[in-house]
Amino acid sequence: MKQSQLFTKTRREAPKDEVSKNAQLLIRAGFIHKEMAGVYDFLPLGLRTLNKIVNIIREEMNAIGGEEMYMSALQDKAKWEATDRWDDEKLDIWFKTKLKNGTEVGLGFTHEEALTSIMKDHIRSYKDLPKAVYQFQNKFRNEARAKSGILRGREFLMKDLYSFNVDLKSHNEYHEKARSAYMKIYERLGIGSLTYVTFASGGTFSKYSHEFQTLCEAGEDIIYVHEARKIAINKEVLTEEVLKDLGVKRADLQERKAIEVGNIFSLGTKFSDALGLNYGDEKGALKPVVMGCYGIGPSRVMGTIAEVWSDDKGLIWPESVAPFKVHLVALLGSDDKVKKAADDLYDSLTTKGIEVLYDDRDCGAGEKFGDSDLIGIPWRYVISEKTLASDSIEIKERKTGKVEMKKMASFL
Amino acid sequence: MKQSQLFTKTRREAPKDEVSKNAQLLIRAGFIHKEMAGVYDFLPLGLRTLNKIVNIIREEMNAIGGEEMYMSALQDKAKWEATDRWDDEKLDIWFKTKLKNGTEVGLGFTHEEALTSIMKDHIRSYKDLPKAVYQFQNKFRNEARAKSGILRGREFLMKDLYSFNVDLKSHNEYHEKARSAYMKIYERLGIGSLTYVTFASGGTFSKYSHEFQTLCEAGEDIIYVHEARKIAINKEVLTEEVLKDLGVKRADLQERKAIEVGNIFSLGTKFSDALGLNYGDEKGALKPVVMGCYGIGPSRVMGTIAEVWSDDKGLIWPESVAPFKVHLVALLGSDDKVKKAADDLYDSLTTKGIEVLYDDRDCGAGEKFGDSDLIGIPWRYVISEKTLASDSIEIKERKTGKVEMKKMASFL
Repeated sequence: MKQSQLFTKTRREAPKDEVSKNAQLLIRAGFIHKEMAGVYDFLPLGLRTLNKIVNIIREEMNAIGGEEMYMSALQDKAKWEATDRWDDEKLDIWFKTKLKNGTEVGLGFTHEEALTSIMKDHIRSYKDLPKAVYQFQNKFRNEARAKSGILRGREFLMKDLYSFNVDLKSHNEYHEKARSAYMKIYERLGIGSLTYVTFASGGTFSKYSHEFQTLCEAGEDIIYVHEARKIAINKEVLTEEVLKDLGVKRADLQERKAIEVGNIFSLGTKFSDALGLNYGDEKGALKPVVMGCYGIGPSRVMGTIAEVWSDDKGLIWPESVAPFKVHLVALLGSDDKVKKAADDLYDSLTTKGIEVLYDDRDCGAGEKFGDSDLIGIPWRYVISEKTLASDSIEIKERKTGKVEMKKMASFL
Repeated sequence: MKQSQLFTKTRREAPKDEVSKNAQLLIRAGFIHKEMAGVYDFLPLGLRTLNKIVNIIREEMNAIGGEEMYMSALQDKAKWEATDRWDDEKLDIWFKTKLKNGTEVGLGFTHEEALTSIMKDHIRSYKDLPKAVYQFQNKFRNEARAKSGILRGREFLMKDLYSFNVDLKSHNEYHEKARSAYMKIYERLGIGSLTYVTFASGGTFSKYSHEFQTLCEAGEDIIYVHEARKIAINKEVLTEEVLKDLGVKRADLQERKAIEVGNIFSLGTKFSDALGLNYGDEKGALKPVVMGCYGIGPSRVMGTIAEVWSDDKGLIWPESVAPFKVHLVALLGSDDKVKKAADDLYDSLTTKGIEVLYDDRDCGAGEKFGDSDLIGIPWRYVISEKTLASDSIEIKERKTGKVEMKKMASFL
């Protein structure tokens, strides 16, 4: 797309009340707009990156048999009372509101209750299992403090998958599949090398849950990394018992700050018992369905990438999630020559299916280069009178700063 | 996809409290689930159809220069007070809730206030105009009555585009472009022949607004159709003056019930005045931006299609929005022959990029045919021992009921 048509402008300063690095950079580069603390709008560049993250996650969820659906934000109180998660004394993150007739409703912060109820219409027999269902949907959490930009939103996008199995054995098999799919996702998102499967507190049905933690100074979690094993332990469960369970020595662990970029959790029969989700087994006996849940927040992941892949000049997007692959920057001269060459190159690249942001604006080189570094597209192609003198383009990789000249002809 | 893997099942009866035809059919066919009155979840088949509607609208919005973004549901009270649209006495469809610190916030039912405020960061000069910005986003409206299924939701998906121009003349030009784009959208959605540009009440800045009304007995609006001119007048503005303005005779109009499937509205400078969205013109003088808004509710459109394209057996999707193009139904016999032929055909069709729902379930022909008619996929391909005896497939068009036999070889 042509930058002259993009409605957003970059800005030198983030709003004064914005203290998080991810939001400061993303606001300055025109990816997001701050509506209020913990509530952000996604501007065109930001939505492009968010959608790329979503699509990577979607592909991997489909690959492990996930069926996509979409549930409502408005939640029926009765279902949440059945699982004892409605009362503000029990759960203090609800946003609640009222229908015109006075009926209280909530804004969903997760969807176990809603989906378990839906599945009652569709699961009757062991033949209807296993199933895995997921959605990308905006969650609402009434956070008392929301100072971490898009890392911790009051309204934020979540991918939540739920699994339904006949027993713990088949649940555990699916859980393992999901764990592999998650690591593949972080790999594809460009944060695989920084992300650790982390043992955290479990529940009634499993001793531990698994978090996925990405090393980052802005993280709110403290984890203990076992580098050789590529695993970690959340500080909240670090005991002698855990060390023994995992067969690791305290001395081999390093304390690090990290951001939780996903979690997978065995729910056992907690929700199926409370809401009556049962199936008939081979002998006709009624049994509760064994469930699991698997979350990744695409907007939180986007914030994490902005935290870990950025420098003092701006953002540095991995290619897989960059809003565009190439930032074509034309340094317009006194005649039309540069403009024409850049237009041709833009047409040629886009025809080949390469996503290009084309800076065709009538402004100086300093402003263009500053904006390009701030926006952080992986490859910057510069055309100027100087590069045209040798029929070339100057190519700079945002990540390494490495510059090389390439002949125009090789792109046309 | 294989129907044995689809988690939803069809059902004979809709919930008793569901009185609208669209929701009854869509629930029975497994497209949606009713969470509460006016609040529905989109199950896999429903989400597929909804996404097809969304993509058609997106393509046409991009074609008229729309830039896609995504705004939050949570709304800042102060902006809505500035336009005098916060007070429940003035607007009685708000859902309101509170942050932990007691600050009141609303759930957006439209986004003029939010977007006008965002644009203040990006529009300074006449050079920054024109712009058109849109989103697909869930709106919340606290409807006192919500008995029309997905035609009138308390939570529903909306495409809202907003235009920004230097003056009324350029606004009007864009408005005309948008009007054409809208008619093209309804054409592509399969309801073009039933949909009329309808003159409705305007505002301070234009005498009329334009609604797009689809003829349907379930509609809440009364319109007067001028068949020859392919326009209509909303009952609420039918006066001698309007007839004169449009140059039509009362006698040429037919009274019909209709569903409003879209509207486009000139906002003039109402929001830019109230929120201070100005630009500097060629001489440096500060002027308010002229705005327009352009809405289509994809979920309402889906409900409209279900109302107008259905019969006593079920839904009849136009090809452009059907969840799948082909419903492959295998009537499994005593040996593996039918299963193998159907598997091969399924692989062959999907390899060619044709979207197929493959009924590979182990159940009777009656149940399979009933489900197929209810789900309403445009083409039903039946493979059975009987069709294989002549190396053929039986092809039935859902819309016309026309049946023909075609040789297997032509598909492989």
